[in-house]
Parts: sequence; structure tokens; C-alpha cells
Amino acid sequence: MESSDRTTLRRHPERGSRDPAAVSSVLDEALVCHVGFTDAEGRPVVIPMIHARIGDRLYLHGARASRAMQAIGSGRPLSVTATIVDGLVLATSAFAHSMNYRSVVLFGAGTPVVDLGEKQRALDAITDKVMPDRREDLRPMTSKEIAATAVASIAIAEATVKQRSGPSNDDEDWPVWTGVVPLRIVAGEPVPDPGCDRPTPSHIAAYVKRQESADA
Amino acid sequence: MESSDRTTLRRHPERGSRDPAAVSSVLDEALVCHVGFTDAEGRPVVIPMIHARIGDRLYLHGARASRAMQAIGSGRPLSVTATIVDGLVLATSAFAHSMNYRSVVLFGAGTPVVDLGEKQRALDAITDKVMPDRREDLRPMTSKEIAATAVASIAIAEATVKQRSGPSNDDEDWPVWTGVVPLRIVAGEPVPDPGCDRPTPSHIAAYVKRQESADA
Repeated sequence: MESSDRTTLRRHPERGSRDPAAVSSVLDEALVCHVGFTDAEGRPVVIPMIHARIGDRLYLHGARASRAMQAIGSGRPLSVTATIVDGLVLATSAFAHSMNYRSVVLFGAGTPVVDLGEKQRALDAITDKVMPDRREDLRPMTSKEIAATAVASIAIAEATVKQRSGPSNDDEDWPVWTGVVPLRIVAGEPVPDPGCDRPTPSHIAAYVKRQESADA
Repeated sequence: MESSDRTTLRRHPERGSRDPAAVSSVLDEALVCHVGFTDAEGRPVVIPMIHARIGDRLYLHGARASRAMQAIGSGRPLSVTATIVDGLVLATSAFAHSMNYRSVVLFGAGTPVVDLGEKQRALDAITDKVMPDRREDLRPMTSKEIAATAVASIAIAEATVKQRSGPSNDDEDWPVWTGVVPLRIVAGEPVPDPGCDRPTPSHIAAYVKRQESADA
């Protein structure tokens, strides 16, 4: 990882890391990221997007005609942030309250992905990330669909993980319960489309089970 | 809500709204938001933050010495985005896959909150938002803690909700299960700090129960 003033943590540096494996782990687990770019007037715009990582590149996709994808693929500076909330840290004072979380802040510039092979791999990676093992059951993408979709990639080079875990660091004597309330995302019972009478496939059952057991 | 080019949705305008009640609802439910500002070189920086809303103002807080809070309170343009993921929309083709979600994108400028009364109300609102009914049990904030904390507010004037819900809009004939896998955040069993032998208070039990039943 490159070191730069932007990725030097001044607040709680003990919570920070530039370890590529830690960066990858958070990017891979986070279902969405928040992408910041600047508009024509230089003002920030932050939008939620689905991402996927292949090696040391992060891929974003969207409609070719969207303003966001045009901005993201334009080479201007981006900030991509992925955050996983793991729990509420409840202390004796409001000041000492905190949150257990893992986040990545990635800086870079978006490059439009024009190579068809790379574009297909990126779109496949996004499909696989959202729902593993589903892609082989899908109707294959058409060249028209691929053409209507814009894909941009960002090198995962200037990135920092910040995380907090464990109990509150609070040893004040005050008569209140202190500890952590863990939070996690779980999947509920799948809801078939009105016209669908097929049984729930194993890839969905496995997904629901994984989500329910994660960190439990 | 003001209308501006920035809040005019071109993609899926049927998913958008400027209704203040809808904006408030998403901001109040989302535990964290992602705040975008520009650094001294005009590059975007996106960081996760906890927020709270009082009426038509959004409040953010952080360490007074933090670069982020200095930027956020500087009056320069901000983009604050809060996203709640409600489910995965699984269709017959990768192209038709989608996500059920609710998000707010708010544009504005941050104002430092210097009035002590407003600052205290904002910090109380943040504490109450993260864990309702806990604040009365806490050791009150000291003037030193309040002084060490910076609070900034943003008018909730130029904001858009975007949301998708329901089944996939996909009637292709292809032999694959289609439908929605609902996702939600749940709270796990509270973990008391090593030195804490008090029983779990009712405000935490109520929180865990609310989270488990939400959207279930």
C-alpha cells in the first residue's frame, strides 16, 4: 500500500492499517460501498453502489447513461468507502460511547473498463459477490446488456482500514451496565416472486444460513 | 424540499422522492451515514459517521481536533448519504438483478454549532438515536468533554430519497428461482464488559427485541 498524507490516520492511529489482506477482507464483506466524486462545480457527491474486488482492483458498475458512472469513469479523483458496523459500545458516559466497526477508505481514480473480457469478469465478480453460486443458473448476459452497462475500475493502492473491536475502554465507576451490543446483517425467509413456484435453490438456502450464523 | 439539478433523479425517477417525511424516516433509521467533503486539493473524501436529526437539521459530531470535523464545519459543500439495504432482488438474468434499499442523498454546507444549548441537544440526540432511553443512566457530560467535541449541522433542505422495494420486475421465462432475499440488521446477545456484573438493563433488552422483530 502506498502511504500518503490522506491515508495517515491522526485520530486513533492504533485502529488503522494499510495491510492489503485487511483491506480486501472489508471490501469483500461489505455489500455496498459509498463512492464520492466531485461534480462539474467541484462539489462532492456521495452515492451508494455495489462493488466487487478482483485482486488489487475494485470494480463498480452502473447504467452507461448515468451521470454517476460518467463521473466515476472520467479519471477524476474518487473516494470509495466501505463500512461494516459490528456493534454498539456502551460506556458510562456519552463521551466514551463508541461503535465497533470495520471500514476501508480508498482513494484513487476511476478508469473505464473497455476490454470486453475484463468487463465480463468484473460483472461476473459483482454477481458472484452478491449471491455466490447463482450465476451458472442465470440466463447469460446479452451483448446489448453488456453494452448498456458501464464498468469502472480503481486500483486498490491508496487504502486504509480503520477498525474498532472489543469492550469499551471505560473504567469509570458509575452505576450503569457497560458492554457491547453486537450488530450483524441477517437474511430473512426468501420471498419468491408471485409467478415463481420453484423450490428455493441451494445457493439461496446456503446464503441465508451463512448470514444467520455469521458472528453469532 | 428545494429542487435542484443535483436532486433531480434521471435514473429510475419513479424510485425518488423529496418528501420530507420520507427523508426523515431514512435518516432516523440509518445508524451511520457517509459524509463527503473535499480536501484542500479539491479531492473527495468520504468517511462514515454517526448522525442525528432534530427537525430539519442533521447533526454530526467528532473530535474537535479531527481533520474531518474541521472540514465538515468549514462551510464548504457536503454530501451526506445514508443507505439502508432491505434485500437482494434475484432475477433471471444478472442484468435484472437489483437491490431493495432506501437511501437519502443530502447536499448542503456544514455550520459549526457553537451555541452550548444547541450543542448539548445535538449530542443528546445522537446518544438517544444510537440507544434510546440510555442517556438518563449515564454520567452527565462534563464541560471539558463538550469542549473537546465538535458538532456541525446541515440544513435538510436539498435532499432526495431513493428507494426500491418489492419483487423483481422480471417476467422472462428461464428456469431459475426468482424473488427477494430480505436483509436486516439484528442485535445479538449483549456482551457485558469484563468488569461489569450488573444485569442487562431494560433499554438494552428492548433494543435487542426491536432489532430482532424489525421487518421480520
